[in-house]
Amino acid sequence: MPSPCSDYPPDLSYDQESYLLSNLKDWSIAHGLAVRPAPTFVHASQDPAGVLATTAPVTLFPSLFPRACFEEGLAIQEAYNELYSAIARDEQWLQGIVEELLDIDDFVSKLWQTHLAVKKEGYVQDLSLGLFRSDYMVHTDTSSSQPSSGLKQVEFNTIASSFGGLSSQVAALHRYLLTIDAYPSTATSVIKADALSQSKSASSLAQGLAVAHKAYGTSKSGLPLCVLFVVQDPERNVFDQRHLEYALLEESAVRSFRLPFHETLSDTLLDASRTLIYTPPNSPSTRYEVTTVYFRAGYSPDDYPKEEDWSARLHLERSRAIKCPSILTHLAGCKKVQQVLATPHSPHLRRFLPDATVASRVLATFAPIYPLDQTEAGEEAKKLAADPSTAVRYVLKPQREGGGNNIYRKSIPTFLKDLPKTHWPAYILMEMIEPPPLKNAILRNGEVQKGGVIGELGVYGVCLWKNGTGADEKGEILENWEAGYLLRTKGDQSEEGGVAAGFGAVDSCCLVGT
Amino acid sequence: MPSPCSDYPPDLSYDQESYLLSNLKDWSIAHGLAVRPAPTFVHASQDPAGVLATTAPVTLFPSLFPRACFEEGLAIQEAYNELYSAIARDEQWLQGIVEELLDIDDFVSKLWQTHLAVKKEGYVQDLSLGLFRSDYMVHTDTSSSQPSSGLKQVEFNTIASSFGGLSSQVAALHRYLLTIDAYPSTATSVIKADALSQSKSASSLAQGLAVAHKAYGTSKSGLPLCVLFVVQDPERNVFDQRHLEYALLEESAVRSFRLPFHETLSDTLLDASRTLIYTPPNSPSTRYEVTTVYFRAGYSPDDYPKEEDWSARLHLERSRAIKCPSILTHLAGCKKVQQVLATPHSPHLRRFLPDATVASRVLATFAPIYPLDQTEAGEEAKKLAADPSTAVRYVLKPQREGGGNNIYRKSIPTFLKDLPKTHWPAYILMEMIEPPPLKNAILRNGEVQKGGVIGELGVYGVCLWKNGTGADEKGEILENWEAGYLLRTKGDQSEEGGVAAGFGAVDSCCLVGT
Repeated sequence: MPSPCSDYPPDLSYDQESYLLSNLKDWSIAHGLAVRPAPTFVHASQDPAGVLATTAPVTLFPSLFPRACFEEGLAIQEAYNELYSAIARDEQWLQGIVEELLDIDDFVSKLWQTHLAVKKEGYVQDLSLGLFRSDYMVHTDTSSSQPSSGLKQVEFNTIASSFGGLSSQVAALHRYLLTIDAYPSTATSVIKADALSQSKSASSLAQGLAVAHKAYGTSKSGLPLCVLFVVQDPERNVFDQRHLEYALLEESAVRSFRLPFHETLSDTLLDASRTLIYTPPNSPSTRYEVTTVYFRAGYSPDDYPKEEDWSARLHLERSRAIKCPSILTHLAGCKKVQQVLATPHSPHLRRFLPDATVASRVLATFAPIYPLDQTEAGEEAKKLAADPSTAVRYVLKPQREGGGNNIYRKSIPTFLKDLPKTHWPAYILMEMIEPPPLKNAILRNGEVQKGGVIGELGVYGVCLWKNGTGADEKGEILENWEAGYLLRTKGDQSEEGGVAAGFGAVDSCCLVGT
Repeated sequence: MPSPCSDYPPDLSYDQESYLLSNLKDWSIAHGLAVRPAPTFVHASQDPAGVLATTAPVTLFPSLFPRACFEEGLAIQEAYNELYSAIARDEQWLQGIVEELLDIDDFVSKLWQTHLAVKKEGYVQDLSLGLFRSDYMVHTDTSSSQPSSGLKQVEFNTIASSFGGLSSQVAALHRYLLTIDAYPSTATSVIKADALSQSKSASSLAQGLAVAHKAYGTSKSGLPLCVLFVVQDPERNVFDQRHLEYALLEESAVRSFRLPFHETLSDTLLDASRTLIYTPPNSPSTRYEVTTVYFRAGYSPDDYPKEEDWSARLHLERSRAIKCPSILTHLAGCKKVQQVLATPHSPHLRRFLPDATVASRVLATFAPIYPLDQTEAGEEAKKLAADPSTAVRYVLKPQREGGGNNIYRKSIPTFLKDLPKTHWPAYILMEMIEPPPLKNAILRNGEVQKGGVIGELGVYGVCLWKNGTGADEKGEILENWEAGYLLRTKGDQSEEGGVAAGFGAVDSCCLVGT
């Protein structure tokens, strides 16, 4: 970070903080930068109808972010869209990856079986939609005499990429606070209009759903067409999703419905040609044909408590609706894929990104990732992980999706000692990204927490493609664009992510440097 | 009401109501159709920082409203603006009215003294702004064989006319619910796009503040210019006000600040030329010159617990800032003025509205109002009020502003019996308006209440004028427009109004008839 940023954010007097907070609290509710309150804050018995809301966990200041890193993240998103679309279209390659996990990861196994069942029956929809988010941290390399900063990827989300609705709002909030002089004049050399990057994510992701909806074509059933948001119920982060629904309706005039995942089988059916028909419970006589299924649920094993839930996923996957994502796309996002791509000297990246220049830019964002398997890289990784002096530079992550349960640094050797060796391949070893030290203040449940923070940049991408018919026919990309960004910021004591899970805040970028 | 409306709103099945409510609850928070929760719902100790919010009390359906009445209300708003601007500019006439109240109504007396003090010193600002709201009910006259409907005025607000910010949102909410088929198909012959009238109130009232701000001219002090919202603190209905602030900033790029009324003397000062200077507590080194003081406080005696509060009002009135409203405009809104205008065969209306056609349209909206004084009309009124058989058609209202304490129908004779005769002139007697029977459902604090309701239409008006210099020079109107509408709906058991006070809901009009 350049030196002017060392005392960022500025300290606030009592009156300054009061002014900033009262404006922040009102603006956020007036603009739907909100969540339903956590049960620890408002117990369900107090508000059985669920009418209360509160400001989404949010930073008081936009966090500093190196401009070059930010621009690079946005610039390579189309390449990432291309990469993951290509992976999702290469079933044979994906099969090789997934098969290594089948015995270890029951969730991956179930997803794969679901895919195979549909494959066996034959596909009726060759279009796939990805609303992706590639998550990065800034990595400060201090190993050379000239410290440098670059983006390193944390993970790539292919399903239920969240916070695109709120991200546009938080960037607008910080701009508003700047406009009304809520940031003291001592900070305005850093926080200034051309340093605050607005995020188009809500509108741009909705546009992605709209192009899929349109690409689906005319109604097969004669019924009106709709998009289906498959959601968890209840959902505290509902306004994030709602902003996409509203943008889809207002900007593209596309109707959508929210379907709790566990109601899939009662509220939808497949007709003889596997066209997906949705019956709104409030109006059973007005049925809709579903063009696009947008999963904001179904990404975690917790969403499948019953066998019917797997039937529901199969049911949707079998349908003619465009899936966002398909199961192959969902599986393309598993950490094992990230690990295989990021294993030093891996040949895989070139397979999917033939353009060497493009591939090298993507490669530069990979932090070295090792398997814990029988390969040469795997054996090397086991040594690094078992030795406390080297383990301290690494994180051990489970291959499956959903966050949580990461093992950090010096805890790794002990953890592995207690883990049966047969379970080791369920984890990957990743070099820790060393983010620059930053400070910020977070408003959460009415309390302001101040201190050291870590920021994680998410770049959204929209990709619509046509699947190929086999080994020789790889399909083609129809739409591909970068779709705005998210900055999530968490206290640097916590080593978990995920604002809705209670550990961080939505944020926006205050760009610094050239 | 035409017969198709007799079973309006339609009954909802469980699934229909669930769908409507879940969409209503999310949309309202996502769009700032919100209030801070009442202390009875969320106790302050649970949320000391005040971050929780809830859906503003709102009707599930737009209430039926006769189209001709609605259009007439909007059409005559400019005439009402002209009328009240003319009254506010006629100090001599207003003095005659106010002097009758001086011994009875301490609040009016204090306002008048404040006005006189400024008059004695001399004015430094000849512009005045009114953001008015004229409130009506539909009166169904069943006395003839041909029942007819017409608008009858309930009151005319010249200060702190509220809900203009939320009214735009609730009209948009009902349109949204129609768009997503939340209203069952059995109702769509009544609820349809061209029957739902959108309200431009938030934008249009903000535009009123913007024209005053501009008309103020250049800075006298060299400081940057701002508008000051003088507010109560705390304010549960804050989002209503915030929407005006945001519109003022976004649509006219005018900065505004919120000043709690009781902090007036600590945060503002008058320079030698009585220019009003505001010092933001958060940034004392960046002072502003105030172009326009917009009162959202100071309208009720409760806002003046200390003598300093009267000093504060005097301080603002003395200043060069344009007042919205000035004390004379504030006094023009007292019920005595309404009563004098609406006393049968009163000569006063013609004084202010010389155009006979215009005056007759305004007159048609007056419900007969009687003084309880020594005049002929007053003596007649006392007989009507004392006799239970006639009192049943009347309401007794205190002259002062602020709602509450009305005495209805058969309670009037007993009330007057206990009231010293010297206090009678503090009240007016008004013929009850007999609104058509309507039904609706209201969401308040998470509970849905259904039943008979009464609707009250408020029409907003913006008027900017130049005050005259004396008896011969009456000043002139510079800007005058109708500024959207509000529908407030309350249960018909309650005979009080005021949504924020806890008795009603914001609503929008579903126009019926030709």
